[in-house]
Amino acid sequence: MEQIKLNDEVSLSKFVHGVWRLAEWNYTNEQIQQLVEGCLELGIDTFDHADIYGDYGCEKLFGDALKNRNDLKEKIKIVTKCGIKLLSAQRPEHYIKHYDTSFEHIVGSAENSLRQLGVEAIDLLLIHRPDPFINPQEVAKAFDKLKTEGKVKAFGVSNFLPQQFKALQAALDFPLVTNQIEISCVSLHEFDNGTIDFCQEIGLHPMAWSPLGGGSIFNAQTHRMLTLKNVLHKISDRHDTTIDRIMLAWLLAHPVGILPVIGSGNLDRIKAATEAQHIKLSRQEWFEIWVASRGENVP
Amino acid sequence: MEQIKLNDEVSLSKFVHGVWRLAEWNYTNEQIQQLVEGCLELGIDTFDHADIYGDYGCEKLFGDALKNRNDLKEKIKIVTKCGIKLLSAQRPEHYIKHYDTSFEHIVGSAENSLRQLGVEAIDLLLIHRPDPFINPQEVAKAFDKLKTEGKVKAFGVSNFLPQQFKALQAALDFPLVTNQIEISCVSLHEFDNGTIDFCQEIGLHPMAWSPLGGGSIFNAQTHRMLTLKNVLHKISDRHDTTIDRIMLAWLLAHPVGILPVIGSGNLDRIKAATEAQHIKLSRQEWFEIWVASRGENVP
Amino acid sequence: MEQIKLNDEVSLSKFVHGVWRLAEWNYTNEQIQQLVEGCLELGIDTFDHADIYGDYGCEKLFGDALKNRNDLKEKIKIVTKCGIKLLSAQRPEHYIKHYDTSFEHIVGSAENSLRQLGVEAIDLLLIHRPDPFINPQEVAKAFDKLKTEGKVKAFGVSNFLPQQFKALQAALDFPLVTNQIEISCVSLHEFDNGTIDFCQEIGLHPMAWSPLGGGSIFNAQTHRMLTLKNVLHKISDRHDTTIDRIMLAWLLAHPVGILPVIGSGNLDRIKAATEAQHIKLSRQEWFEIWVASRGENVP
Repeated sequence: MEQIKLNDEVSLSKFVHGVWRLAEWNYTNEQIQQLVEGCLELGIDTFDHADIYGDYGCEKLFGDALKNRNDLKEKIKIVTKCGIKLLSAQRPEHYIKHYDTSFEHIVGSAENSLRQLGVEAIDLLLIHRPDPFINPQEVAKAFDKLKTEGKVKAFGVSNFLPQQFKALQAALDFPLVTNQIEISCVSLHEFDNGTIDFCQEIGLHPMAWSPLGGGSIFNAQTHRMLTLKNVLHKISDRHDTTIDRIMLAWLLAHPVGILPVIGSGNLDRIKAATEAQHIKLSRQEWFEIWVASRGENVP
Repeated sequence: MEQIKLNDEVSLSKFVHGVWRLAEWNYTNEQIQQLVEGCLELGIDTFDHADIYGDYGCEKLFGDALKNRNDLKEKIKIVTKCGIKLLSAQRPEHYIKHYDTSFEHIVGSAENSLRQLGVEAIDLLLIHRPDPFINPQEVAKAFDKLKTEGKVKAFGVSNFLPQQFKALQAALDFPLVTNQIEISCVSLHEFDNGTIDFCQEIGLHPMAWSPLGGGSIFNAQTHRMLTLKNVLHKISDRHDTTIDRIMLAWLLAHPVGILPVIGSGNLDRIKAATEAQHIKLSRQEWFEIWVASRGENVP
Repeated sequence: MEQIKLNDEVSLSKFVHGVWRLAEWNYTNEQIQQLVEGCLELGIDTFDHADIYGDYGCEKLFGDALKNRNDLKEKIKIVTKCGIKLLSAQRPEHYIKHYDTSFEHIVGSAENSLRQLGVEAIDLLLIHRPDPFINPQEVAKAFDKLKTEGKVKAFGVSNFLPQQFKALQAALDFPLVTNQIEISCVSLHEFDNGTIDFCQEIGLHPMAWSPLGGGSIFNAQTHRMLTLKNVLHKISDRHDTTIDRIMLAWLLAHPVGILPVIGSGNLDRIKAATEAQHIKLSRQEWFEIWVASRGENVP
C-alpha cells in the first residue's frame, strides 16, 4: 500500500484505520493485537484516535492491548486529536460540551494521549474542530512545546474551513500537514466550500472521515440517495465489485490525494475496503457518481 | 484602561465611545465637554464618528463643543468614516442613497471632517461600507494624499468581508489597521463568514459596533433570544453583575482583541460598561453564551 | 476601441465578439467574413470561441470561412475554451456530460481548435468550467506544453470562484490572465461570491458572458425585473439611448475593467452595443441600477 508523505518526518499509509468505535467492539487485548497485525499485513500502518473516542476510553484500550507489543508499536503510526471537551462522567468538571484549544489543554491532552497509548510520540496531532474561541498564538506555543520535546511529530486540523486553517497556519513556524474532513460521494460539501480547492492550492492531503457516508447509502430513502445507490450498483456491477469499494475508489481517484479512514473492526471488511486501491474508475464513471449525488447535470 | 496599538503611530483605548446619536441627545456644549472629560477619566480616549452621523451633523456638534478646549483635543483620538452618501436635506444633490469611494469624495469628506471637528488630524479614517463600485487604486491615491499631508494617521474599513479587505489592501502601500464590524453574542455572523478568522490571520484588531446587539436582547421575543437572555442572566448572577456587562465581557474575552464601541451618552452607563474589563468569563461560560445564541450544541 | 492588455503578449479589444451561436445563424462563408470585417471596423478584434460551441461545430465554420483570408486572420485574436465534454453525436464515446481537464484532453482539444480554426496560435485558452476532478499539476503540464510549442499565447479560466482560481494558479509558473464570468446588472452573484473583489486584488480583467443577462430583462415578469427594467428605461431616456446600451455601460463603468462578450450575429446590433463605450453613467445612476437589481437600498 502506498505511503503518503505528509512532511519530512511523517508518512501515513494511504488507508488509515479509524479506532473511534473500539470501545463498542468489546475486543480482548488479543483481538486488538490481531486487528493491528491484520491491518499491518494489509499495509495499513496508521491508526486514527482522538482523546474523546469511546468516552475518553479508546486510547487506553488500544494502549493496554499493545503494552507488551513493542514490535507492533514500532511499526504503527498514531494519529490523535484534541480540542473537544465532552460531557462525560470521566470529566465531571465539564458542564457543557465545548472546545478548548488553550495551551494547557492541548499540551495536557497530548501528554495524556501518550500515557494512555503507551507510546513515546504521537505521529500526528489534530485540532479536532475549529474553535470559535481559538487563540492561534496559544496553539502555536503548545505545538512548539510538544514538537520540541519530541512528543508530537506533525500537526494538523480537522473540519477546518480554509480561512480557519489560514488563521492557525499564520501563527505557526511549520506547516500543518493535513485536514481531516467529512468527504465521500454522499457528502460533497467540502467541494463546495473551498476546502478541496484550498488543499490543492497548498498541496495538502486531506484525510476523509465517513468515507462511506456513514452507511447512509445502505438505507437510502430519498430520491437522491436511491439514484446514487443505483448508479453505484451499476458501476460496481461493471467492475465486478461492491458499492462500498466503488465509493472508496471514487475518493481515491481524486487528484488531491485523500486518505480514507476506515472505521471497521472486522478484518475481512477492512481487507475488502483496501481492494478499492485496485479499482480504476474512468473519468465518466467519476462524474456519473458526482452527478447522481448532486442530483443535477454539470452546468 | 488598556491601549490597543493599531500601528506605530496610532493606539486607541480598548473601549471606544460611539458618537453616532450625539445629535439626538440635545446636549449643550458643556454637557458634551463633560461627556468627553468623563470618558477620559474612565480611560476612554477614542471617539468614533462618521461624516453622516446625525444627518451630517454630529462631527460639527462635537467640534463646536470642544472649540476652546485644546486641553481635551490633545488627549482624545478621533475615528471617523466616509463613503456613504445619504439622502439628506444637507446634501440635496443626492437622489439615492449610495456609496462613493472616489478620490474626490474621500479627500473632500476627510477634509470636511477635520473642519467640522476642529482638529488637525484624524487618527483613524474608515471606509464605512464595502462599495461594489470601488476602485482600490483611487482609494489608495486618496489615502496617500491624506497621509502625506498629515490629515489622517491611519486607515481602516468597516463591514468588509475578507476578500473585500484584500482587494483594497492590495492597492495600498501600508496596512489597513482595523475593520469595524457588527459583532456581539447576539450577532455571530462575523464568526461564520471568515471575518474573525481573517483578522486572526493578519493580526487585525476589529472594532465592534452594536456590541450589545442593538439592545435586542432586552426585548427578547423569540425562543432563541429568550434562551440567550436566560443564560446571560444566569451568568450575570454568578458574577454579581448585569447582562450588558456580561455581553461586553464575552466580546472582550475573545483572543482576536475586539474594541467595543459604546454608544451611550450617559456617563454612568459608560462607566458600567467599562467594568466589563474586570469580568473574567470561564471558557465554559463563553461557550454557554455561544451555544445559547446559536441554538445548538457545538458539533 | 480600447485594447485591454492581459499580459506582455496578448491584448484584446474591450468588446469581444461571442461566436457561440454561429451555427444557428446559417451564414455563408462570405457572411462570416463580412461579420469579421465589420467587427474589425468597429475595433472588435477578438472572437470568443469554445471547442463545444455549435455542437463542436463553430470553430470549423469560422475557420472554413476565413480559410483564404489571412489578411483577416492576421488582425484577429482568438479566444477558445476546453474542458467540457458534451453528449453529442460528434463525440459518441461520451455517455454523460462531464468535464475533462486531463493533460491529454487539454492538449488534444487545443490542437483540434487550431486545426478547426485554421490558425497558428490561440491567443487565449480558457478552462471552460471549474472541474471538481481537476489535477492542477496536470493542467499546468498541458499549458506548459502548449505555451512552449507556441500553440497558445495566454491562459485563463471561466466561471471559477477565487479559491478554484488560486488552486490552479498555484500550479502554474505564469499568471492566468482572465476569468470569463456571467455578470451583468441582471446577474450580480459575482459581486457577492468574492470573484470581483478577487479580480481587483490580483489585477485581473474579467470577461463578461451574458452581459445583457441573456435577454431576460426584455421579458421581465417578476417585480424585481420589472423594477430594474423601469430604472433602465428611465436612465436610457435620460441619455437618449437604449436599455441594452445602458446595461453595457453599467458593466463598462466598473473599475475592475470588464470585457463584455457580445453574442450577436447582426452588425447593426454589434455597432449599437459598442456605442455603450461613449455613455458615461454617473455614480448615482450606477447605484440606481444596482439597487433596482438587488431589490433593496444599500445598507
